[in-house]
Amino acid sequence: MIVHERPVRFEDVDAAGILFFARFLNYCHDAMERVFDGLPGGYVDLITNRRIGFPAVHVDADFHAPLRFGDVAHIETSVSKLGATSCTFRYRFTRARDGVHVATISHVTVCTALDAMTKLPHPPDVRALLDTHLAP
Amino acid sequence: MIVHERPVRFEDVDAAGILFFARFLNYCHDAMERVFDGLPGGYVDLITNRRIGFPAVHVDADFHAPLRFGDVAHIETSVSKLGATSCTFRYRFTRARDGVHVATISHVTVCTALDAMTKLPHPPDVRALLDTHLAP
Amino acid sequence: MIVHERPVRFEDVDAAGILFFARFLNYCHDAMERVFDGLPGGYVDLITNRRIGFPAVHVDADFHAPLRFGDVAHIETSVSKLGATSCTFRYRFTRARDGVHVATISHVTVCTALDAMTKLPHPPDVRALLDTHLAP
Amino acid sequence: MIVHERPVRFEDVDAAGILFFARFLNYCHDAMERVFDGLPGGYVDLITNRRIGFPAVHVDADFHAPLRFGDVAHIETSVSKLGATSCTFRYRFTRARDGVHVATISHVTVCTALDAMTKLPHPPDVRALLDTHLAP
Repeated sequence: MIVHERPVRFEDVDAAGILFFARFLNYCHDAMERVFDGLPGGYVDLITNRRIGFPAVHVDADFHAPLRFGDVAHIETSVSKLGATSCTFRYRFTRARDGVHVATISHVTVCTALDAMTKLPHPPDVRALLDTHLAP
Repeated sequence: MIVHERPVRFEDVDAAGILFFARFLNYCHDAMERVFDGLPGGYVDLITNRRIGFPAVHVDADFHAPLRFGDVAHIETSVSKLGATSCTFRYRFTRARDGVHVATISHVTVCTALDAMTKLPHPPDVRALLDTHLAP
Repeated sequence: MIVHERPVRFEDVDAAGILFFARFLNYCHDAMERVFDGLPGGYVDLITNRRIGFPAVHVDADFHAPLRFGDVAHIETSVSKLGATSCTFRYRFTRARDGVHVATISHVTVCTALDAMTKLPHPPDVRALLDTHLAP
Repeated sequence: MIVHERPVRFEDVDAAGILFFARFLNYCHDAMERVFDGLPGGYVDLITNRRIGFPAVHVDADFHAPLRFGDVAHIETSVSKLGATSCTFRYRFTRARDGVHVATISHVTVCTALDAMTKLPHPPDVRALLDTHLAP
């Protein structure tokens, strides 16, 4: 599991004054990148040099409480399932100041050769990394 | 059902060159607002004057094919379930030029008094509108 | 001159409740793309097939009045200066409902071969198009 | 002067593969908030509790070199001019890995009572803070 905190930005709220629901997924992607920081060059090297990406094939999100400007999202990221080519990331969002449970989001990716846009088995270093965060 | 098309913007793609997965939800919200265009003043009047909002409590998304800059998202929006306070919107995304199925997203909202942030039964006009788009 | 209207989106405001200042430039880019709609395939074809882009080298913006959710930005786009490789777009923003002057933004681009990221004289068709919108 | 670094996010690039020009202003706002971190409660307290904001009235930006995914923006923020109600922030962007000068952006704000949307002289604590970053 990796813990990551991110303040709600001034421009991340919507006209109802709360973190816009789509932006939770921006935060998730950011949290996923923190997992890949465990590899040399991180997510950037995967995308830019190795041309390996992790497009989403499924997202399942439960929202329990809103976040507002001034709140800090506390995000716990783990891998709940690891297949040959697919990986399920699980993000648990709480509000940093009081621990209120904000959201739980599940995000299934498929390891993909970006130039051909075809499925790829997780390379051994990627698989080993993801495996260390496995918490079924 | 309401049909809505939206071109993928220049700034909507990610470093892998495809529509960033979070932005699908921006497109969904836009499509949901098109449904509320059926009320006088539309979604703006609900939010701004009546102070009624529809925060997401659940999202379920299946992504089948990517969209790129230059593609147009063809979005069919319907209501798949209508409760006293909750509503499930269903968005079917296809690629306009060839009809390829891109994504299906389900989005559960709860009718909410924005100032108190408490649940509210759908007002009769809102319920009547949503009911016309019901396609279980 | 090209006229383009764009409603302020639900997620385009900031925590102060007004259109976030950075997003004016998103609106400008959109308006610039409307100019390029005058070529077959539009801006998409330029970027994707011809690999010609128009990165900004300068932006100058004066903001006079805020826009809020529910407002519609009325944008008048013209070319105020056209060089061999550079072009200055001028966007005049008013609020659609009452004509209040919201902002004037000047945006200098340089025609660029995207693969080499080097300056390129405007191709004749691009130059001819931009010339029709010249309003010094 | 305050120094702040921010990696270019996966979703911050455009279809030309470079940091979208509008997003430079998102980065500027973030850098400005780092200045206000010098007050108890920071920018959040100003906006949320004191209802004081700093809408932009002018932006002037020169872009010299692109940033790509994987680059880190190194941003030096100072106050180049301080008036009774207005403040000019100056942001100098370099690319962290090699110090290449990327952009210089000037951003004039007006201290504003957010509820009335009227001009306000800088409160003494705000003025004192901004004054410490003055570098004409």
